[in-house]
Amino acid sequence: MATRGTTSSFMTFSLLAFLLLHGCVAQLELPQSGWWHNLREQQQHRLRAKTDCRVQRIDAREPEQRYEFEGGYVEYWDGNNEESECAGIRFVRHVIQPGGLLLPHYANAPQLVYVVQGNGVQGVVIPGCAETFESGESSEGRREGGPRWESERGRGEGGRRWESERGQSEGGRRWEGGEGGSQRDRHQKLRRIRQGDVLALPQGVTRWTYNDGDSELVTVSILDVANDNNQLDLNFRKFFLAGNPSSSGRQEGRREGRQEGRHEGRRFGGREERSDEWRNIFSGFDEELLADAFNVDNQLIRRLQSQDDNRGFIVKAERLNLVLPEYSREEREEEFRHGGGRREQEWRHGGTRREQERRHGGTRREQEWRHGGGRDSSNGLEETFCTLKLHQSIDNPERADIFNPRAGRISTVNSQTLPVLSYLRLNAERGILYRNALTAPKYSANAHSALYVTRGNARIQVVGNEGNAVFDGEVREGQLLIIPQNFAVVKRASEEGFEWINFQTNDNAFNTKLAGRLSAIRSIPADVLANAYDISREEALKLKYNRRESTLFSSESSEEGRYRPRDAEAKA
Amino acid sequence: MATRGTTSSFMTFSLLAFLLLHGCVAQLELPQSGWWHNLREQQQHRLRAKTDCRVQRIDAREPEQRYEFEGGYVEYWDGNNEESECAGIRFVRHVIQPGGLLLPHYANAPQLVYVVQGNGVQGVVIPGCAETFESGESSEGRREGGPRWESERGRGEGGRRWESERGQSEGGRRWEGGEGGSQRDRHQKLRRIRQGDVLALPQGVTRWTYNDGDSELVTVSILDVANDNNQLDLNFRKFFLAGNPSSSGRQEGRREGRQEGRHEGRRFGGREERSDEWRNIFSGFDEELLADAFNVDNQLIRRLQSQDDNRGFIVKAERLNLVLPEYSREEREEEFRHGGGRREQEWRHGGTRREQERRHGGTRREQEWRHGGGRDSSNGLEETFCTLKLHQSIDNPERADIFNPRAGRISTVNSQTLPVLSYLRLNAERGILYRNALTAPKYSANAHSALYVTRGNARIQVVGNEGNAVFDGEVREGQLLIIPQNFAVVKRASEEGFEWINFQTNDNAFNTKLAGRLSAIRSIPADVLANAYDISREEALKLKYNRRESTLFSSESSEEGRYRPRDAEAKA
Amino acid sequence: MATRGTTSSFMTFSLLAFLLLHGCVAQLELPQSGWWHNLREQQQHRLRAKTDCRVQRIDAREPEQRYEFEGGYVEYWDGNNEESECAGIRFVRHVIQPGGLLLPHYANAPQLVYVVQGNGVQGVVIPGCAETFESGESSEGRREGGPRWESERGRGEGGRRWESERGQSEGGRRWEGGEGGSQRDRHQKLRRIRQGDVLALPQGVTRWTYNDGDSELVTVSILDVANDNNQLDLNFRKFFLAGNPSSSGRQEGRREGRQEGRHEGRRFGGREERSDEWRNIFSGFDEELLADAFNVDNQLIRRLQSQDDNRGFIVKAERLNLVLPEYSREEREEEFRHGGGRREQEWRHGGTRREQERRHGGTRREQEWRHGGGRDSSNGLEETFCTLKLHQSIDNPERADIFNPRAGRISTVNSQTLPVLSYLRLNAERGILYRNALTAPKYSANAHSALYVTRGNARIQVVGNEGNAVFDGEVREGQLLIIPQNFAVVKRASEEGFEWINFQTNDNAFNTKLAGRLSAIRSIPADVLANAYDISREEALKLKYNRRESTLFSSESSEEGRYRPRDAEAKA
Repeated sequence: MATRGTTSSFMTFSLLAFLLLHGCVAQLELPQSGWWHNLREQQQHRLRAKTDCRVQRIDAREPEQRYEFEGGYVEYWDGNNEESECAGIRFVRHVIQPGGLLLPHYANAPQLVYVVQGNGVQGVVIPGCAETFESGESSEGRREGGPRWESERGRGEGGRRWESERGQSEGGRRWEGGEGGSQRDRHQKLRRIRQGDVLALPQGVTRWTYNDGDSELVTVSILDVANDNNQLDLNFRKFFLAGNPSSSGRQEGRREGRQEGRHEGRRFGGREERSDEWRNIFSGFDEELLADAFNVDNQLIRRLQSQDDNRGFIVKAERLNLVLPEYSREEREEEFRHGGGRREQEWRHGGTRREQERRHGGTRREQEWRHGGGRDSSNGLEETFCTLKLHQSIDNPERADIFNPRAGRISTVNSQTLPVLSYLRLNAERGILYRNALTAPKYSANAHSALYVTRGNARIQVVGNEGNAVFDGEVREGQLLIIPQNFAVVKRASEEGFEWINFQTNDNAFNTKLAGRLSAIRSIPADVLANAYDISREEALKLKYNRRESTLFSSESSEEGRYRPRDAEAKA
Repeated sequence: MATRGTTSSFMTFSLLAFLLLHGCVAQLELPQSGWWHNLREQQQHRLRAKTDCRVQRIDAREPEQRYEFEGGYVEYWDGNNEESECAGIRFVRHVIQPGGLLLPHYANAPQLVYVVQGNGVQGVVIPGCAETFESGESSEGRREGGPRWESERGRGEGGRRWESERGQSEGGRRWEGGEGGSQRDRHQKLRRIRQGDVLALPQGVTRWTYNDGDSELVTVSILDVANDNNQLDLNFRKFFLAGNPSSSGRQEGRREGRQEGRHEGRRFGGREERSDEWRNIFSGFDEELLADAFNVDNQLIRRLQSQDDNRGFIVKAERLNLVLPEYSREEREEEFRHGGGRREQEWRHGGTRREQERRHGGTRREQEWRHGGGRDSSNGLEETFCTLKLHQSIDNPERADIFNPRAGRISTVNSQTLPVLSYLRLNAERGILYRNALTAPKYSANAHSALYVTRGNARIQVVGNEGNAVFDGEVREGQLLIIPQNFAVVKRASEEGFEWINFQTNDNAFNTKLAGRLSAIRSIPADVLANAYDISREEALKLKYNRRESTLFSSESSEEGRYRPRDAEAKA
Repeated sequence: MATRGTTSSFMTFSLLAFLLLHGCVAQLELPQSGWWHNLREQQQHRLRAKTDCRVQRIDAREPEQRYEFEGGYVEYWDGNNEESECAGIRFVRHVIQPGGLLLPHYANAPQLVYVVQGNGVQGVVIPGCAETFESGESSEGRREGGPRWESERGRGEGGRRWESERGQSEGGRRWEGGEGGSQRDRHQKLRRIRQGDVLALPQGVTRWTYNDGDSELVTVSILDVANDNNQLDLNFRKFFLAGNPSSSGRQEGRREGRQEGRHEGRRFGGREERSDEWRNIFSGFDEELLADAFNVDNQLIRRLQSQDDNRGFIVKAERLNLVLPEYSREEREEEFRHGGGRREQEWRHGGTRREQERRHGGTRREQEWRHGGGRDSSNGLEETFCTLKLHQSIDNPERADIFNPRAGRISTVNSQTLPVLSYLRLNAERGILYRNALTAPKYSANAHSALYVTRGNARIQVVGNEGNAVFDGEVREGQLLIIPQNFAVVKRASEEGFEWINFQTNDNAFNTKLAGRLSAIRSIPADVLANAYDISREEALKLKYNRRESTLFSSESSEEGRYRPRDAEAKA
């Protein structure tokens, strides 16, 4: 009997899996992964432009362009340099003031975001998913509103009548009456974002961000224009659903006047030529056509087209009151405790990918259960891609993947921990290096890197295939350094320490270290090293075994006075 | 006990697999899918040329080149325009007269074909598959011939002797005797194609088409030269196995003289420069070498090389008598009834992908059984990729995926319904819009589109990232409009209605609507919209809820006199 | 009973699926494949440069550049020709003298190597894998050394303490004492390579090669720079971990002086301009930084940087004594017997891919067990990708995939037999053609080919889409011929016979033959051929059936005096 039960349930489970999934197997474990795996399979690998990339010299750069708006500003790193063009990536920083709303838009390139500071609410529109969240005037309104909407939705989704019938019976003028401001409203899931979160945004997905906190919300993003999901060219394209970007000003100089800009939000007279031409996509359609499509009057369409709107692309929206479900304090603490188990993983770094996957899978599933528990979900669909996990915290020290109490720590977000990244083909690494500590010299065998400094500064050296340093200098907070695939890099923190976020153009980095316990050097027989470097066997063994740490190196020598930190700037 | 043990170990084994593998599952259901999934995995993603794509203006185009032959003509859309180059696609229309045979050839790009009119027989050579069809002089011949051939095949495939032994014992001069014209012949599966079918043709697969009907067979095709399966450059290349293309004429002007061309099949003196150089690939080989390879005399090789053949690439083959198995009338009607269940699916559009898959999967399997039932198949191989489903009807109204009795209907063929498309990475959408109805404004987040008008006309607007219309005008039967990824589009049918076939460069489209019941606007909280557009909450709710239909919109307003169709041409 | 029946049928179904499908499931059999499948999924498909490829003429080429070093030389085929640029591949030949050591390095492109002659030891560094091999001064040392290291490793990997703690307790000065030359040393797995082996080297993986045999070790390699795993541009880049490449000389002329070069290993004064700039990557880093990273003194770092090293990139390392486990003679013979079962496979060529897979899978697993059996492996990890199979013999006649005793044989290595190739997306075909025999005219529908002649010579014809021969001539030992995707090719061996290795840019070739038993011609109904070529039905049947062999054709006609081999050179 037990056998029968087990067999049947397993078969049911299997068939369910077979029916639900088109992709793979591991998705039994990771339902989200399955869907995205499937999508990833569907992605195109299209044409791209490319010239030769000599890469004789790269630079640590700050943003070249700033657009200031009513509720914040956007800074772009210029793509007109060899390392950015050759890597096929763009970089951007958003600063949204408290009460600022980054208007709905979508882009032609996958985007990975890191929240440097602050917190807010993000809306991401997943086409075809139901509106499962409610926002009303008050929490009381929400409670009462529920049942009525629920029933409408029940009809809307469960019914089998023609849409136009429903349209006639329910729709049309219903909202034109006097109910007005007191109406409850439904919309798709909103996501709370906080300092230290990494957010994954597929190309073509409409998103908006609202800063409901008390401090500025600062984010930096990689825009992977060379990604196969972008089928057009290597230009970054942003499609606005609202606002009138041409009303925005631009700050020319690098960094000058940044402080006042940040605090006053003032706009400048100098306009950027291209910006003048940009309008939201509704403004390109015929007013009459849109009035018909939305079934509203022309006046409202003119508001939609925002042609007289001068607020720019980040507007002040202080009357916006979005209520999100939040973890209770106890829940959060429990989650942290859960995550703590990952601390031991460094000793099997690289090898135990599957082990990790199983473990993360487990953690993730539990999170999903916890997430899903509070929802009324009548079908399985909402459990899967409509509730797709798009962000993950990378700052929690207890979740560090690599930790050396004398050198620092590193956390990573990749497709093992955030399955949607297998579709975006990007990953992120958060690193913290204590004063004077250094990283193992290493190279990435399958990705370019875009390293942004969030705090402190460090001396970094990057060496290319010709064996000379293409970068050797100090990088400091707010700077970006793009490191091509296969180029070797070493970082040494200054006396202030060094913190960074590193985005890579692959969903799982495949990095090789050149020194330390897990290095290529240690994998090679001492006799080979002795012959290769024309040294004695003892010396070869020193090269292999003298540095026992694997990834983050404490500056042991400096304690003994051998290493003298020098003015890296002077040399650079 | 034994059962339990087996079950458990199988479960362990399975779970191990699930943990270890990131591969796939659903293929247990869809053996064809599995094979193609595999192939797709093997495909290369190679180099491509690309320049910047400003895309300030696109045009609705008609074919620029026509090649007329004995049995029909071919019309090419010129690739020398920005939208075609940037999308990396070419487009072609074939018109084959009754009794016309499009000679065997292959191409360097995946091709998706829509049969606009007529019906015919298509042969697609899948390398290594057995010859499972027979054609003889008469049906009587077919019936008798079976067993004898069967036995030869049994030896050919099941035996373990060296091929040359077989060659000696069976081959060689066998056919040189007087049996001649009364011989039965075996060949690979033939496929019946009909108006409304979509055909998928992988790159490099040899195919030919014969019009055995009474009316012209008209097809249009997308040629996806930027597809990763083409590893060379962005030029479209056709490799002829027969015929002498250089004998073909060319009609210069656009459309002029089309009617006579169509009916007379006359050839023009004016030759195209490149056409002069083209010959079939056999003509490039040494005659002696081929004579040896085919083991025939040189005279026959000269026929193979077709150097004196002036009939062009579509020849008259009226003596060709291909007998195909056909559905009986009852079977066809039953199949239609089966397909009818898909009508209800619109209300869960986008979300229920998996639900759909299960349903389609089921339908497909049944079809396969029915297909396979009549065959004598001694091994499993023929059940899988040798009988690969390469075409599917998209015109049957009962199979519409989206239907609105006041606006029209849409049917799609993608890798869910036709698994081979996961290898081609293309999909097709068939749309019919009733008079004055319009489509929801929408954009495709993961594909370019090539829209060909099969009947009627419509006003179409396309808006790019700068917010201005890159196309605004009327398109009519026979025209092609290429819409880049992420560009928003809206179509309004004229008084005559509008019918189209839309090919997209991804095997599953990921479309976002901008108005209506499943739109991005509806997914955004009303408060956010109110702030974004600087409108009242009531107005935001109108934007969200006034249009209750999801994809195809009836022109409600026009009934109330608000919408006045204007001369779109004049504006454009 | 019902349960058992259900279970069994489900298992049968499942097993059938496992056998049928390669994607996913077959990896139950092949854990390595699973891991690589996963990796393959993660790979990026990035930007590439491309111009138009007219391909009017291709040439059989010999290497244009030679670099001579102390212990051997390297010859490069120049990439500056249309076929090489359009195919996106480079080609290289290494000659390592007995006792020569090719220094550790990595490359930006996947590489597939064929060992033309000799044998040696190859080290491939897989990041994060444990050091499971030991090399010492003597076999006695190895035996004793084991346990002590084992315990250290036990602590290193199994412990849960911080790495730095371990670093302090174990590390640091341990090796600086007088133990010196008598120390045992551990390193990653070494691989024995022999004439006839195919080696797969992913991009970015550090590798070195040592010739411990008595004769020259000669290898040829394809470098697939257009592969998606290379995200930068189409230049081939080599990153050296040791040596000072700028010390190398270069031999200008083609082939002249090759004999003396080979035997003397002399270096030339004339330096190559780029070579002057190349140094190993350590030399680009700051000496102090490296001294700290390795925790050694600056003097040793200067050796690491090799700035005064004049030995070049292949050094003499005659004192190098690497002890590898080897098969006993009995084991080898048994393995051959195992492989012999593949001989019968030609008759189901193309079709029985899955059948083959099952068979190969089985063989491979057994090999792995045998491999793994001798190791002390405490976790499953080493069983999987750390012991990843990177090479396979392709020369063993008993393992031929296609064999015709009157014409020759062909063996292939693809992702079915060497799963890592699904990540590299390359395959190799080894062919041997007896005197005067010829290959079926064929084209590859999904890959470019790089054919290198290992012995003898042949007349080859290559025909492109315009129907004229882009190559028609004799190719001989040491020459390379690049054949674009879809171009048709036929080879006829000279009186001396012909042997080649053919690398293709896909992990499973999809080839279509144009004559013979498995050809496109045979798949087409005779009536269609009769109409296509304007011949009689009897003649069509001759075209289809006169050549009974499938892939390698004996020159039957020549026996009967009809075929007269001509001076192919004269015609070319």
